[in-house]
Parts: sequence; C-alpha cells; structure tokens
Amino acid sequence: MEYTIKMIADFLGGTIEGNPDKIIRGFAKIEEGKEGDLTFLANPAYTRFIFTTGASAVIVNRDFKPDKKIGATLIRVDNAYEALAQLLTFQEQQKEKPKGIHKLAFLDQGVHVGEDAFIGAFAFVGKNVTLGNNVIIYPQVYVGDHVTIGEGTVLHPGVRIYHDCRIGKNCIVHAGTVIGSDGFGFAPKSDKNYRKIPQVGKVILEDDVEIGANVTIDRATMGATVIHHGVKLDNLIQVAHNVEIGKNTVMAAQTGIAGSTKIGSNCMFGGQVGISGHLHIADGVKIAAKTGVPSTIKKENMIIEGIPALPRLEFQRSFICFKRLPDLVKRLEKLETLLEEKKS
Amino acid sequence: MEYTIKMIADFLGGTIEGNPDKIIRGFAKIEEGKEGDLTFLANPAYTRFIFTTGASAVIVNRDFKPDKKIGATLIRVDNAYEALAQLLTFQEQQKEKPKGIHKLAFLDQGVHVGEDAFIGAFAFVGKNVTLGNNVIIYPQVYVGDHVTIGEGTVLHPGVRIYHDCRIGKNCIVHAGTVIGSDGFGFAPKSDKNYRKIPQVGKVILEDDVEIGANVTIDRATMGATVIHHGVKLDNLIQVAHNVEIGKNTVMAAQTGIAGSTKIGSNCMFGGQVGISGHLHIADGVKIAAKTGVPSTIKKENMIIEGIPALPRLEFQRSFICFKRLPDLVKRLEKLETLLEEKKS
Amino acid sequence: MEYTIKMIADFLGGTIEGNPDKIIRGFAKIEEGKEGDLTFLANPAYTRFIFTTGASAVIVNRDFKPDKKIGATLIRVDNAYEALAQLLTFQEQQKEKPKGIHKLAFLDQGVHVGEDAFIGAFAFVGKNVTLGNNVIIYPQVYVGDHVTIGEGTVLHPGVRIYHDCRIGKNCIVHAGTVIGSDGFGFAPKSDKNYRKIPQVGKVILEDDVEIGANVTIDRATMGATVIHHGVKLDNLIQVAHNVEIGKNTVMAAQTGIAGSTKIGSNCMFGGQVGISGHLHIADGVKIAAKTGVPSTIKKENMIIEGIPALPRLEFQRSFICFKRLPDLVKRLEKLETLLEEKKS
Repeated sequence: MEYTIKMIADFLGGTIEGNPDKIIRGFAKIEEGKEGDLTFLANPAYTRFIFTTGASAVIVNRDFKPDKKIGATLIRVDNAYEALAQLLTFQEQQKEKPKGIHKLAFLDQGVHVGEDAFIGAFAFVGKNVTLGNNVIIYPQVYVGDHVTIGEGTVLHPGVRIYHDCRIGKNCIVHAGTVIGSDGFGFAPKSDKNYRKIPQVGKVILEDDVEIGANVTIDRATMGATVIHHGVKLDNLIQVAHNVEIGKNTVMAAQTGIAGSTKIGSNCMFGGQVGISGHLHIADGVKIAAKTGVPSTIKKENMIIEGIPALPRLEFQRSFICFKRLPDLVKRLEKLETLLEEKKS
Repeated sequence: MEYTIKMIADFLGGTIEGNPDKIIRGFAKIEEGKEGDLTFLANPAYTRFIFTTGASAVIVNRDFKPDKKIGATLIRVDNAYEALAQLLTFQEQQKEKPKGIHKLAFLDQGVHVGEDAFIGAFAFVGKNVTLGNNVIIYPQVYVGDHVTIGEGTVLHPGVRIYHDCRIGKNCIVHAGTVIGSDGFGFAPKSDKNYRKIPQVGKVILEDDVEIGANVTIDRATMGATVIHHGVKLDNLIQVAHNVEIGKNTVMAAQTGIAGSTKIGSNCMFGGQVGISGHLHIADGVKIAAKTGVPSTIKKENMIIEGIPALPRLEFQRSFICFKRLPDLVKRLEKLETLLEEKKS
Repeated sequence: MEYTIKMIADFLGGTIEGNPDKIIRGFAKIEEGKEGDLTFLANPAYTRFIFTTGASAVIVNRDFKPDKKIGATLIRVDNAYEALAQLLTFQEQQKEKPKGIHKLAFLDQGVHVGEDAFIGAFAFVGKNVTLGNNVIIYPQVYVGDHVTIGEGTVLHPGVRIYHDCRIGKNCIVHAGTVIGSDGFGFAPKSDKNYRKIPQVGKVILEDDVEIGANVTIDRATMGATVIHHGVKLDNLIQVAHNVEIGKNTVMAAQTGIAGSTKIGSNCMFGGQVGISGHLHIADGVKIAAKTGVPSTIKKENMIIEGIPALPRLEFQRSFICFKRLPDLVKRLEKLETLLEEKKS
C-alpha cells in the first residue's frame, strides 16, 4: 500500500493535525511505529507511547487531548478503533481472492458449487453439499454429506463439518475447528457401562458468525445446536449439544458451555468461563474470566464473577475479606481471649 | 422412518396410554415436538413441557405421574432415557455403512485391512498398520506406523494417531483428536534451557472407549498411557503422559489430567476439572466442574469441589460464609468497638 | 537396542554398583521394570519402587542413599533425569529420518525445499514457502504462503501454519496445532453488531521451541505474536494476538494468555492458568495450576496462586481460614451472644 495521510483521512472522514502529505506504507503498533507507518490509539493504557512513537501518523478519537507535544500527524475520527477496522478491511478487500476447484480436491456426488467459489487441495466435500457463491474452502477441509454453506463464508484449513449442518452467509471458521461432532450423551446401564445416545440433530450457524481455531461445537441430540447471527467465538471453546447462543454474543478463548444451555444476545464472556447445562443466561450478561456459572441468570446486563458465580461487586467485596482472613482470625482470637479473661 | 406408536412400544417392551395407531416419522425435543414426532421425558426439569408438547408420543418412566391431562400418547418404560438410546441406536444401525478404500487414500507398506473396513479420501495409513473388520477411517485421518485398530472402531475426520498406539474394538474418536503426541517432558539444564526427554512409550485405548473432538492424549515417556474399557471423554480434554483412566469413567469437556496420575473406575468429572500429576483418584469419585485436585483422593465415591478441592459439603458450607464475609467483618468490628468501649 | 550396563554407564559418565555385564534391551517405568529393562529414579515419590523393581538397572542421582538392599544394578550420575534424557535422545537419533517429497504432497509455486527435507502425503505447501534443511513436514500439514521454516524443524500431522508466519530452527510442533489464525479483534458498532478488525500481523517462533498438540497461537493485529527461544508449550494452550513469551518459559496444558500480554523469561506456569490481556509478567514467575492473573506481576521469581492471583503463601494462609469459615462464624456468633448477655 502507499497512500498520503490526507487520502486516508478523507477515506475515514477524519480531520488532520500535522503534515497531511507524508506517505503511509504500512500499519504498526503504536510502540513499534516507524517512519511510513500508520498506527492508532484506542486503549488509554497505551497513551504514553503516542509521544514517542516513530510512526508517521496516528488515528485518535476526536476528543483525545494530549498533554504533551506529539511528533506524528494525528487523524481525528469519531472512533479510532472502528476507523482502524474500516481501513484494514479496505486493505484486505484489495487482496485477490482464490477461485476455482483445485485438482486435488475431492467432491462427492451431487455437490452444488456457487459462482466464484474456491475449494483447495485435499478438501473433501460430501454428497449433496451446497456451497454458496464466493465460498472459500481452504485445503484439507472436511464438509460432510448434505451440509449447506452460505455465500461468502470462509472455512480455514482443516475445518471439519459433520453431515447435515448448516452454515450461514459471511461466516469465518478458523483452522482445526470441529462443527457437528456427537454431543456427549450416554445412558448409564445397570452394569455400570454406558450406552451411547446417538446424536441425530445438527448444528446451525446463522450469518456473520466467526469461530476461532480448534473450537468444538457438538450437534444436537435432536433438533439443533444454534449459533445466532453475529456471534463471535474465540479459540478452543466448547459448545455442547443443544446449546443456543444469542445474537452478537462474544466469548473469549477456552470457555465451555454445557448441554442445552441457552445464552442470550449481546453477552460478553471472558476466557475460561464455564456454564453448567440446562441454564438460561439473560441478554447482555457479562461474565468475568474463569467464572463458573451453576445456575440460571435471569437479570439482563448483570455482571458476574467467581466460582460459583456471584454478582461481581459482591464477589469483589468478599474476595477483599478473603485476603484479610488470617488477620481477621487473629482479631477474632484476640476478642475471645479478652472475653475469656473478663469471665475469669 | 415410519412406525406406529404400537410398533415402537412393542420394540421397547413399553405400555401405551392413548392412541397406539398414530404414525411416528421422527424424533424431537419435548419443547419442540410436532405431529408425527416421538419425544421423551427423563429430566424432571422438563416435565412442564409434556402438557403442551405437540409431539404424537412421549416415552416416560413407568412411575411417572402427571398432575394434569396430557394430549400426547405415553409409552411407559423402565428407563425413558435408555429406551430412547435403544431406539436411536436401532435407527442408526439401519443406515448403510461406508465400505472400501477410497482411491485418494494412501496406505503405506504392510498395512492389513480387515473385512468391510472403510478408508476415506486423503487418509494416511502408515507402515504395518493393522485395521480390524468394519473399521471406519473417515477422510483426512492420520494413522502412524505400527498402529493397531480393533474391529468396529470409527475414526472421524482429521483424527491423528501417532506411531505404535493401540486402539481397541468399537471405539469412537471424534474429529481433530490427537492420540500419541509426545508427553510434556523436559529436563532443565544448567544454562536454563531445557533438554527434551524423548517419549518412547505409547497410548492404549481399550474397547468401547469414546473420545470427543480436539482431545489430546499424550504417549507415555516409557510404558503406556492407558484409557480403560468403556471410558467416555468429552471434547478438548487433555490427558498427559503415563496417565491411566479406569473403566467406565466419564469426563466432561476441557478437563485436564497431569502426568502419571491414575484415575479409578466409574468416576464422573464435570467440565474444566484439573488434576495434578502423580496422584491417585479412587473409584467412583465425583468431581464438580472447575475443581482443582492437588492431592490423592483415597476414599471411594467421594464428592469433591473447589480450588483446591474439598469434600463438596465442606466447600459449600465455607462458600456460604465466603458470600457473607463483608457482613461478618462488620460484625467483628462491632464487637471490637463494643469491647474497646467497655475497656475505657 | 542391546547394550551392557557398562556401555550405558560409560556413555553417561556414571559409576556402577552391581553387575555391569547384564544386557539392557529397553526402557521401563520403575514400577513396571522387567529383566532386560533400564529404568531411572528422579522423583523421590517413586523411591519405594526401587526396592521391588524387576528392572536390570536403575539410573539414580549420585547422592541417592537407599535405606534397604536393592536387587537391580545402580548407575550413579549427577542428574538422573537429564541422563535419561541423554540416553533416550541418543536412541532416538539412531532412528532413520524420513526424506524426500511424497508424490501426494502439493507444493505451490516458488517453494524452496532444503536438503534432506521431508514432505509427507497430502501436505500442502503454499507459494514462496522456504523450508530449511532437514525439515520434516508430516502428512496433512498446511503451510500457508510466504511461511519460512528453519532447519531441523518438525511439523507433526495436521499442523496448520497460516501465511507469513516464521518458524525457527529445531522447533517441534505437534499434531493439530494452529499457528497464525486471526486474533480475536472486533470493534463494536452502534447497532450492537461487531466489525472484524483484520489481523495483518504474523506469528514468530524462534529456535528450539516445542509446541504441544491442538494449541492455538493467533497472529498479531499488527506486528507479531512472538514465542522466544526455547519456550515449551504443552497441549491445548491458547496464545492470543500480540502476546510475547520470553525465553525458556514453560507452560502446562490448557493455559490461556489474552491479547498483548508480555510474559518474561524462565517462567513456569501450571495447567489451566489464565492471564488477562495487556499485562506484563516478570522473569522467573511461577504460577500455580488454575490461577487467574488479572494484573501485571512486576516482581521477578514471584510464586502466585488463586483466582484472582495472590502471592502463593498469602493464598494458602487465606485458604486455610476459608476451610475453617463455618467454625469461625460459630465462634463469632458465640461472642455476640456473650456480649449480648452481658449487656442485658
């Protein structure tokens, strides 16, 4: 890429403070920026770097007020992080997309391939699969029989989608992720062995869903495990059978949701959260990293933390006392001694 | 499928309450059942749906006593969940199984393939591998040199089995799971670098084991990591080198077992449990989700919870107090003030 | 293999106690050793087995003092575990390494393959990839465009390396691991949908790094996620975008590091640890299994534990009180009653 700062500011609808004519050739983090780099400041924790960055230009929020002189040119926008996203997206869209079916891919009978779709080497596409226009199937992907994949969706290398699952439009699934594996369902038998409950349901991903790498989403016992529109899941997440995740909910890595739990819309979960089975989590609930949720959360927008989970403020108040426990015990003992002395 | 309720009840040895002649065409969850669906009620939390379900028939436990009128026909059996399993299994068995070696599979020298086995496209089968009768190897599976796989075992797409491992009969391994990767063994050197300890052992899966998706089971340093008969592991579980898991033990997703730990038979672990290395866990132990186990559990059938783990009841009693800590501190302070006043 | 005990002791620079002429044919764990086996004793927890082992010889530390008679021949060395590593490494090196490009591998344009490198069946190697001498690419590996892989590095089956990443020399990456997937970066939009932030950075693995199975290491938003020299990561670990892990740091399975966090050198993390984003962890910090770290650790060599993390000793002292909480509450209540009585 090669643009002037002015061209970029115009594209973003931003205003310029400093030299508008410098040339931008790439992106960098603010602490690593060099001449020719464009960077951004969105997280206040990084503010100190704006005074020392070597980058030629920095995208900042319109209301940013530096308390020292800044060497770089500033581009002021309403939302620096979103402006960066817009710019990176524009740059990504310039890249040529792969097209066509690789000679070392295997397509079984009855596969429908949309226009300008791509299927890479060693990809396996099962019977009667439907691939929408502009679908990108990277090498070594497995798409089971009767799967449908909506237009514009990208499956990265080694994604596995079991039979009958439905993937929406403009989804992205990262490498190694498994969609549609059997739910963990076993009926105990009288001899202490278990009998497998065949899992005859499926998985549905609605549109604009992004799933990280090495995630597992199990098919439903009956019916469907459903990931609604706009959901974003980070890496190594477990979604058990018959779970439902509401619109635009985001979850950080290594979180696990047990069977049949329904998660609301617009929730935000930290990493390594665990949620028990058969629960409901209301819309907009925020869950701190590592929290364990043993029961239904009915109140919308609640913030919870702890194992088991408490309202966040309650957890924090109790945890402050937990830290002081050895001291509190001493104080209790002192009172006991005092009273013992008084008695005698 | 298309059966009358009577045919299904006869197959299950169940008794019918209601119209025995309706036609069943599929399975559904009780809250989603429609005309022509068969459903079941095993978990009491779902009882309320039996009164409103649109399903034509519901399998229930023989002792189920509804307190209202039910529209659907009931099929009463000894164990509704097991009856469902039996029925779904029967239906699964009607499906035609894949057979033969795909032209795009690669088999190295000395591979023995049993009768009616299947090897899918882009599967790699190493030197001197033995595959039993009716083994199903899905596309893109890797089977290392000298591996043996018992009859009836199914390896889903992208399973990787390193050299020398032994997989029993009628096992199921889900997509992306790795069996036989090197154990995490390093000897610290004087210069703070680590020297790798080659892992020359293997992994043994006995019969009737089911392993979820994206699980990792490391080979032993020496000897074998052993998963005994009937064990069921959910997705994203870590089993370190030289671990042994006893018969019919079940573990929920994202649990991790550190090196050389021996787990007893018939244990049940919730999700995200962690167990330290070189421990013994007695038979029948139940571990709550997210628990961290730092030491050996000698008592059979114990139920434990917490990080670090306590007997469950003890944990729960302490946790109730934890929630009340801010209040308890206030009460302690009040006593201190009172006594201080008395002194003066 | 077939060596006398004397040959092995000479190789290790060890001294012999017992019969030096017995033949060693294999390795075994001390509790499973049989005639012809060599074993070792490094972990004191296994000392009792040295008196009963059937192995022909045991490698022990020079200062080991048995309190009973031992049947096996002893080989005394400075560090039994490192000696074992040396011996197993020697044995591994005797194995013939695979070489050449399999006829069913696919190499795109401009690939440079070093001398004596190996590329297995169904491996995909993208445009302009550079593979150093003696690189081993197992079957079904994906190497994206413009990746470079240093000499002697081994990629196990099904490893996926996205475009532009750089892997150093003598690294080992186990099956199913994903390197270079997109970081989890989304900008919230006013309509509660999220806009994806394209991740235009990369991942750098320096030399002598070993990564376990089914690990995920995300590419940087801009710049690079960096795993420094000698780092060892166990299975199922999550490393988010722009993380940096210092030299010779080791992490046990299922640990997760959130975005932009910088980890020092020579740290040791237990399993299932979670570290929040944008933090710094000082050199030599040790973190107990399951710990959650919400803030920067500035003090070198600190040992921390708990969720959220405390200095280990503080955590343990508080946890002892946590166990006693129900009793402490009773004692508090007793004091309250006493004082109440006194009042009246």
